[in-house]
Amino acid sequence: MSTTGKQIFTTLAADGTLTVEVAETTFPEPTGNQVLVKMEAAPINPSDLALLFGPADLENAQYRDGKIVATMPEPFNSGARGRHGQRLPVGNEGAGEVVAAGDSDMARALIGKRVACVPGNAFSQYAIADAGMCLPLGDISSRDGASAFVNPMTALGFVETARMEDQSAILHTAAASNLGQMLVKICQEDGVPLVNIVRRQEQADMLKGMGAEHVVNSSDDDYREQLRAAIDATDAYFGFDPIGGGKAVDEAFKAMEQVAAGKMKEYSRYGSNQQKKMYIYGRLDLGPTILTPSYGFGWTLSGWLLTPFLQQAGGETMMRMRQRVLDNLTTTFASSYKQEVTLEGMLEKDAALEYRAMKTGEKYLVVPHG
Amino acid sequence: MSTTGKQIFTTLAADGTLTVEVAETTFPEPTGNQVLVKMEAAPINPSDLALLFGPADLENAQYRDGKIVATMPEPFNSGARGRHGQRLPVGNEGAGEVVAAGDSDMARALIGKRVACVPGNAFSQYAIADAGMCLPLGDISSRDGASAFVNPMTALGFVETARMEDQSAILHTAAASNLGQMLVKICQEDGVPLVNIVRRQEQADMLKGMGAEHVVNSSDDDYREQLRAAIDATDAYFGFDPIGGGKAVDEAFKAMEQVAAGKMKEYSRYGSNQQKKMYIYGRLDLGPTILTPSYGFGWTLSGWLLTPFLQQAGGETMMRMRQRVLDNLTTTFASSYKQEVTLEGMLEKDAALEYRAMKTGEKYLVVPHG
Repeated sequence: MSTTGKQIFTTLAADGTLTVEVAETTFPEPTGNQVLVKMEAAPINPSDLALLFGPADLENAQYRDGKIVATMPEPFNSGARGRHGQRLPVGNEGAGEVVAAGDSDMARALIGKRVACVPGNAFSQYAIADAGMCLPLGDISSRDGASAFVNPMTALGFVETARMEDQSAILHTAAASNLGQMLVKICQEDGVPLVNIVRRQEQADMLKGMGAEHVVNSSDDDYREQLRAAIDATDAYFGFDPIGGGKAVDEAFKAMEQVAAGKMKEYSRYGSNQQKKMYIYGRLDLGPTILTPSYGFGWTLSGWLLTPFLQQAGGETMMRMRQRVLDNLTTTFASSYKQEVTLEGMLEKDAALEYRAMKTGEKYLVVPHG
Repeated sequence: MSTTGKQIFTTLAADGTLTVEVAETTFPEPTGNQVLVKMEAAPINPSDLALLFGPADLENAQYRDGKIVATMPEPFNSGARGRHGQRLPVGNEGAGEVVAAGDSDMARALIGKRVACVPGNAFSQYAIADAGMCLPLGDISSRDGASAFVNPMTALGFVETARMEDQSAILHTAAASNLGQMLVKICQEDGVPLVNIVRRQEQADMLKGMGAEHVVNSSDDDYREQLRAAIDATDAYFGFDPIGGGKAVDEAFKAMEQVAAGKMKEYSRYGSNQQKKMYIYGRLDLGPTILTPSYGFGWTLSGWLLTPFLQQAGGETMMRMRQRVLDNLTTTFASSYKQEVTLEGMLEKDAALEYRAMKTGEKYLVVPHG
């Protein structure tokens, strides 16, 4: 027996017209290790926004008949030619109740339970999910369990990556985000020195209020001195950046090199011997990444994504990480939301403009049956 | 007994005044494993130019009394504060005759022999070198042996790096250089598919004349199609770039991702699963490196330098590489020069402007006693 319900779809036409809509859909019966989840809550993460809207012009879009029709600028439209004409579901993660299951034992054991899941179409009233990726929430509400995967596993993944690469400290840009706050708590629990770069004083105050030791505010006049002092104190020549575009990574590399070069006894035209490494894990800024030639050749910049990381880390590490998330879902890994919206509410102009701005502290939670 | 002779020095004052001069110097007696080499030939490599002139304004410099006095623009002057006030010798490598030695057996065995060496002050009539790094040239002339280290070991180092990282093919930008020609020959000998990117038709013709199979001319209208076809044919998702600034790396990543994404069955917002890696090993362009957000998160960009590579590769690999260079110094690893200059000739305006332009086929050879 199939189930019908509403779901968000995003479609980019070859001419650059982006249509985002709520549509009635039929969900198939789950088979094998699948479960059908009645979705109760799903966060709008930056990685969802990249697919939902990308850099489309939402300011001048049409909002009517429960649809957004917007224009995707170049070069992004051509760059996204792989999705042209495809009607795509959206929403990496969420939580809800398992209402049907395939015939595997693992799937059947979840019937009637509230779970966090990673279906890929979480902005929907129903979703088919893999039972092996579901996290039974017990007494935890769907609202509290909705963000149990992307941010917690990413923040834990940073610390695991640091360990795998023999790094003893971490630098994090845009550090006041939900994910950044989780990272502060994880690093405190694990005794990993963490340099937090934020953009505003209230963000610095918030992280310091959580006990963060090294917080650098990029709006301060002496920002670069602060950053160098924090790197010097922690030996953080390794970091993560969700901004991507502009000079966030460049500033980090430059400060790292200046600290390392300051400790050299002799001038070297090639810079210090200190290896510096940064990972870009998001694209809050879709402009190009700018790397100036001011830190020699001892640096590496790489992309970081959760799924390939988990594949590389292996099943055992992933199970350990998931258990830690579940054990601390309302403390270390708690998320907060500015606003709840329905599927239809997601497509209203004021809401769309606000949550797509991805401002710190302004995350939205979708309640598909709300 | 100490020896006197002429040597090139470069000095950057804190106010940005760069002085490059020939000066009489006293060379100490070699001790231990050192030898004193009467330098007969030394190439002017891009890595020497970074120290010799950097981005100083040579067009409007003063050329008189055997000196160049030029202005170092910002931000490069501040960026080079580590060398302010230091009078630095220049010249990574060269060849000449060993005229004195320390008391180690290895050093004494070289007396009277012609060697290639890596003294760091090769633009000099004499230089102290480490006997362990000297390559006895036998019948090979100093002119033919002068470039036995930097380019040959770098080109071999690329192939070794590819092997260490389980890469089966290599992409090389600015591929018509002396080093690029060596890489063509090495890859032919070792059966490693190589994508060569050049900027002019005569460079493409020259490499094809050497038997290079995949040569892409970035001046052609269909350059990007050519590049994608070459990557598709070779699986070169791994490469080296001596340009550094601008979009050379970006173009390579973009083409790699387009080839990989073209083989995907399903659209992914995160791009293909194909890992792409580029190394920057030079800075022919001192502008910033520009990375556009058009190839997902599966990429790594890193600096590559010969010395840290050799340290990582270890003594055995290095000895094997050196033997291969020595065995093929006038064939695979032959260098060609446009012009010979004396130490004084290096500081004449026409010469300085020409060799600092680092154009393909316009390398200079310094003959300190010529």
